[in-house]
Amino acid sequence: MQTLNVNLGERSYPIHIGAGNLARIGEFLEQAGLRGKIAVVTNPTVAQFYLDPVGNALKLAGFDVTPVLIPDGEEFKTVKSLQAIYDRLIAERFERKSCVLALGGGVVGDMAGFAAATYLRGVPYVQVPTTLLAQVDSSVGGKTGVNHADGKNLIGAFYQPKLVLIDVSVLRTLPRRELIAGLAEVIKYGVIEDANLFTLLEQKIASLTQLNEDLLIETIATSCAIKARVVEADEREDDYRAVLNFGHTIGHALEAVTGYTQFLHGEAIGVGMAKAAALSARQGFCDAESLQRIEQLIERAGLPSKIPGNVSLLGLIQAMEVDKKAAGGKIKFVMCEGIGKTRFHWLAPSEMLNGLGA
Amino acid sequence: MQTLNVNLGERSYPIHIGAGNLARIGEFLEQAGLRGKIAVVTNPTVAQFYLDPVGNALKLAGFDVTPVLIPDGEEFKTVKSLQAIYDRLIAERFERKSCVLALGGGVVGDMAGFAAATYLRGVPYVQVPTTLLAQVDSSVGGKTGVNHADGKNLIGAFYQPKLVLIDVSVLRTLPRRELIAGLAEVIKYGVIEDANLFTLLEQKIASLTQLNEDLLIETIATSCAIKARVVEADEREDDYRAVLNFGHTIGHALEAVTGYTQFLHGEAIGVGMAKAAALSARQGFCDAESLQRIEQLIERAGLPSKIPGNVSLLGLIQAMEVDKKAAGGKIKFVMCEGIGKTRFHWLAPSEMLNGLGA
Repeated sequence: MQTLNVNLGERSYPIHIGAGNLARIGEFLEQAGLRGKIAVVTNPTVAQFYLDPVGNALKLAGFDVTPVLIPDGEEFKTVKSLQAIYDRLIAERFERKSCVLALGGGVVGDMAGFAAATYLRGVPYVQVPTTLLAQVDSSVGGKTGVNHADGKNLIGAFYQPKLVLIDVSVLRTLPRRELIAGLAEVIKYGVIEDANLFTLLEQKIASLTQLNEDLLIETIATSCAIKARVVEADEREDDYRAVLNFGHTIGHALEAVTGYTQFLHGEAIGVGMAKAAALSARQGFCDAESLQRIEQLIERAGLPSKIPGNVSLLGLIQAMEVDKKAAGGKIKFVMCEGIGKTRFHWLAPSEMLNGLGA
Repeated sequence: MQTLNVNLGERSYPIHIGAGNLARIGEFLEQAGLRGKIAVVTNPTVAQFYLDPVGNALKLAGFDVTPVLIPDGEEFKTVKSLQAIYDRLIAERFERKSCVLALGGGVVGDMAGFAAATYLRGVPYVQVPTTLLAQVDSSVGGKTGVNHADGKNLIGAFYQPKLVLIDVSVLRTLPRRELIAGLAEVIKYGVIEDANLFTLLEQKIASLTQLNEDLLIETIATSCAIKARVVEADEREDDYRAVLNFGHTIGHALEAVTGYTQFLHGEAIGVGMAKAAALSARQGFCDAESLQRIEQLIERAGLPSKIPGNVSLLGLIQAMEVDKKAAGGKIKFVMCEGIGKTRFHWLAPSEMLNGLGA
């Protein structure tokens, strides 16, 4: 097992990464000073595998467990679902020291986290991510929120968990398509910060998709460590934290214009990274060999790397302007400078149209 | 004019208190580093007097002003009204550096503040309180939120403004009943922290209700300074900040059981303080003379001090248990030890029933 720390002063917390961690969940929560009432927020898909083992382990450790089921899917990441969580917390008389636990992927984590951030102006919460995407990205760093009809994550808060508990064994029940999608964020860390991680992925991508547990622990720990360092440097994304958006500006827009039905988040990020690398090369920031390695790794991982023919480039660019990262008409991009290094660059819609159409 | 600072590290901000400050609002906001788009959240009652002057002053200073009107009244402090604010911010393409300004009383301030706390995970906001209650209490300290059908402020966040701008001249248009209600919180500061303020109020309460501007500035500045020191010591109400709840545990419950129609917040706090002082005396924490002075000042201010005959004490105590301040069955009370000093004390429902029934 590996343990990392996210160092944010009084908001610091540990990330435990191992195989079989779920069985020891009570112990980890006690270590973090939590006790009493706990709401386990999850969805039916995850619940069928893990609600009983997690609930029982928590009860054995003396917790008073309230399961809260929310429907599975990004389309339910809404203020309405949030209200259903509040209603349960109120009905069960959750108090300011009571705890919320997110057991699931990014949707569960973002919503449970935002409910925790805003119930009684903030109660403690714990992330127990069950998808690779959530384990390497959304469970760490305190971004919480829900979607609005006009865009993803428009309503939310920065609110850090007390603890992130990652059990790589749960990836055995994750659909293969979702596992692959999660790899997009791992590749991203390599591109933006860590050429060694990128090379490791080039060598061992097959072993990773075959769920070699030691390799998973190493790769996830490296990914979380990179994310933790970025979050420590810029918790509220005033500036530097935006490097984590490499591939996301185009990726988010692609998800939006395809109605969040055609691409999993990680798949859209696959396309977004390939296109961001191509834009970086076009602007002279990225060499041709690095661009080729990035495109190849994305494809070898089994991720899409091209914008589908039925997607309008103009519509895509419009969707980017609605996104949070727009300011003053131009759109902020994370460009890669080869592998392991980035820079910010603002592009006008016309430059993007030329770049993406090329 | 007086300026105080609330010292909270990177979340520090000034409170400006004076007569005629609204005319200079653009200058104050520029000083605070704000510019660009600004949403002026207010209600029709306040808008008729102050939306044009504030809007025009902001436009003159170069701001791009979007008025956002929400209905007047505590019953509209809901997730639904909040959604209407989000919708406007999204429609006007507010970005992460855009600003929200609360122009109104506590309801406007709490909702606009919570919208700012949660739109794009947090945009800057400014408090321009137009009621005495909001000027001495709710605009300072970063408590934001909305009500839930089952209780007040159950959904919210701690989120500090960039600036609080208090103009005592606006109190001329405040209905007398609301002015009096605001005095409850001023009296509270005297009881919990400042015997000199309490004595000043005993001497000059009439002059204050006649809106002597110098006296208003002095009294409001003293009140805000006390609140600022408490918030600095315990921003997220882990412990000490709860002293500000003196009179509020009973007061909130009284508002709840009377359906938020019979009492203004400050009026309920008048009753709550008189009863909290009586409970303090009964527990041996407060001497008889101080109790009498507290009851008399509340009554001389024109505030109610007694629980109405039609209110069930059992119902009142039940309502307290639902409140945020309950934990483990007992209810946390702020007791006064004479005037200017407090202590926390946990009371079982039966002790309260005896105390309040006496």
